[in-house]
Amino acid sequence: MGSGLPRYECLALADALKWLDACPHAVGSEPVPLEQAFGRVLHAPLAFAADRPDRDLALADGYLVRAEDTLGASSYNPLRLALVPEGTVLRAGCACACHAGQTVPPGANAVLPPEAGEVAGGALDVCDVVARGAGIGRKGQGARCGDMAVPAGRRLGGPQIALAASMGLTDLSVWRRPAVAVVLAGAKPPATEALGAALAGLIARDGGKARQGAATVGALAAAAPADLVLLVGRSGRGGDDDAGDAVAAAGGRLDHHGVALAPGGSVGLGWLGSAPLLLLPGDPISALVSYEVLAGRLLRRLAGRAADWPYPVRRRALSRKIVSPVGLSEWVPVTCDGTEAAPLALAPADGVIGYARADGYLIVPAGLEGHSAEEIVDVVMLGEASSQERE
Amino acid sequence: MGSGLPRYECLALADALKWLDACPHAVGSEPVPLEQAFGRVLHAPLAFAADRPDRDLALADGYLVRAEDTLGASSYNPLRLALVPEGTVLRAGCACACHAGQTVPPGANAVLPPEAGEVAGGALDVCDVVARGAGIGRKGQGARCGDMAVPAGRRLGGPQIALAASMGLTDLSVWRRPAVAVVLAGAKPPATEALGAALAGLIARDGGKARQGAATVGALAAAAPADLVLLVGRSGRGGDDDAGDAVAAAGGRLDHHGVALAPGGSVGLGWLGSAPLLLLPGDPISALVSYEVLAGRLLRRLAGRAADWPYPVRRRALSRKIVSPVGLSEWVPVTCDGTEAAPLALAPADGVIGYARADGYLIVPAGLEGHSAEEIVDVVMLGEASSQERE
Repeated sequence: MGSGLPRYECLALADALKWLDACPHAVGSEPVPLEQAFGRVLHAPLAFAADRPDRDLALADGYLVRAEDTLGASSYNPLRLALVPEGTVLRAGCACACHAGQTVPPGANAVLPPEAGEVAGGALDVCDVVARGAGIGRKGQGARCGDMAVPAGRRLGGPQIALAASMGLTDLSVWRRPAVAVVLAGAKPPATEALGAALAGLIARDGGKARQGAATVGALAAAAPADLVLLVGRSGRGGDDDAGDAVAAAGGRLDHHGVALAPGGSVGLGWLGSAPLLLLPGDPISALVSYEVLAGRLLRRLAGRAADWPYPVRRRALSRKIVSPVGLSEWVPVTCDGTEAAPLALAPADGVIGYARADGYLIVPAGLEGHSAEEIVDVVMLGEASSQERE
Repeated sequence: MGSGLPRYECLALADALKWLDACPHAVGSEPVPLEQAFGRVLHAPLAFAADRPDRDLALADGYLVRAEDTLGASSYNPLRLALVPEGTVLRAGCACACHAGQTVPPGANAVLPPEAGEVAGGALDVCDVVARGAGIGRKGQGARCGDMAVPAGRRLGGPQIALAASMGLTDLSVWRRPAVAVVLAGAKPPATEALGAALAGLIARDGGKARQGAATVGALAAAAPADLVLLVGRSGRGGDDDAGDAVAAAGGRLDHHGVALAPGGSVGLGWLGSAPLLLLPGDPISALVSYEVLAGRLLRRLAGRAADWPYPVRRRALSRKIVSPVGLSEWVPVTCDGTEAAPLALAPADGVIGYARADGYLIVPAGLEGHSAEEIVDVVMLGEASSQERE
């Protein structure tokens, strides 16, 4: 590890994150039909527009009664009540067959279960006592009109969609998916296509919508309008590294070029019109790492989501020490076995081999010379492993 | 809680899970282009078909040298080497300008950084010592031909896709997405559409592809061929609960009808042709809970994923006791605050209100009468909260 300090201005990673977190986020909302709302993020809080239930109702099939009329009833001492038709006021000494969901008429205050009554002619023989309120859902018992149903910012899943439908809603106001213009200027086919596909997948994971333009830095001007622009490749300081110039030529600007992050040191942070623009390195591992550490964080916030890692972070003990230069935030993939994390040696110039094999990763803070063996570190847990462990 | 034991055969939840886990899973594989592989599950292990790198190569721009020729060199004592053209055997006393990625010719064994050499005429003045092997990636150093690149069953993310591209692959063999036929026979519009949308979202989350047929039990016969059939609604024992009959009429069968799970007691487990068929209750909360507890587990396995909950499971202390009848596995939504979980009271017949508000849920095991306050329980953490906490 420690394959070299970036040769650029060395903006500290913490300052790069501050820059990202200060970007305005105003992509706004859009309505979506309930059928398309799964996984979207609710924009404004959803409140109940009526009491739930909106009236007293029977919760089960049976007989609506006045509980006091059943006092003393048993199979040895059945009490006879007169059966009256549905929908009338229930007077003392009367009962009414009911089904779940039926409105409770005035006078009734309990539902007698079917097995506790026997119909004989036009009468009901009650064989058990029933408590006042039993089997009845009271108006407003579930929620009051005006109560919060779903808070703003909630990722919509099955229950929220089913709840909205039961409120009579047919669409919901959700955060618009940020449009992310991806300009791949670095790698050659087929690596370009694969990197584009990998980034599109990550962008979708983080709530955005990738739009991939022509694979040249010249395509940058056509990237607008977008909510976020990623210019990938040619971000270094070599002879053919013209990404910075392309930004200027397209009318944009870079606030910073170079972050003390490895891999990913040639990242740039700037603007194309009102859209934040990130320069990402073109080699696959640097592109993916700088997306994960920097671009994804901004995108998630633009999409109305939590900015933090989209994977669980777990405390793990290092199986081996990690040496890392002070001043550099070094990204290190690890494999995990139980509560232990083993740093993966990245093959020089071929780090994607190790990344593809990793169960997670950690970032060695810039202020440290590394971590000692057995030190407890925060590991971002990749993939499905995160959902399988119990601790 | 404890809204009543199901009125059906009471298959224990553990036995229902055993039934699900015993279903054969042979949906097989399909090739997908790399561009569409993000999030899919690799079907067969991917091995390197060549050494990585496949030859010795320069890792950086500079000068290829024999390290022994630089011994003793310093800025006070520069050593002069003859510059020779690229591609020739490097003899003693010679050097050759190189760029990153260039093949190392026989004889050369190190890359001298550009700043450690100065070109003067056709010669190079070497101002620093370089160690043998410095700046050179050895053939097979990253991986050997035949080494595992990505194991079978791995969910494909950015690094795996980038790695496959760098191996020259243009597509990958992944688990086919199981086709899930959803027949909504219970609720009325718009609740039907919403429940269909909610289930389609969950099915996509679990790696399947929902195909929704006409919303009647009669549509069941048309549901085949599918890898999994969900018949939702009319699963109970009331007069219009004809789902069981519809299964028989369509040529299917139920192995079990009724699981000791609440909500979700009227679940059925069976077959339609060679496809597993699940009867789910029609009311939204029972449908969603029985999907989460039962159907989702089977689907994830059919899709080549881990069968376990697709959310992290965390240990939490209950803030209040939960009473639950012995013999019933009771699903209880909770809100979480720090390390504490508070059970949500489900509004009778309107449990979806509580579910929509929940941060997670737990299942009270059938053998317990509930949990006492402050007891530590396993909570399945829903939504994004799972990815934000550190512990």
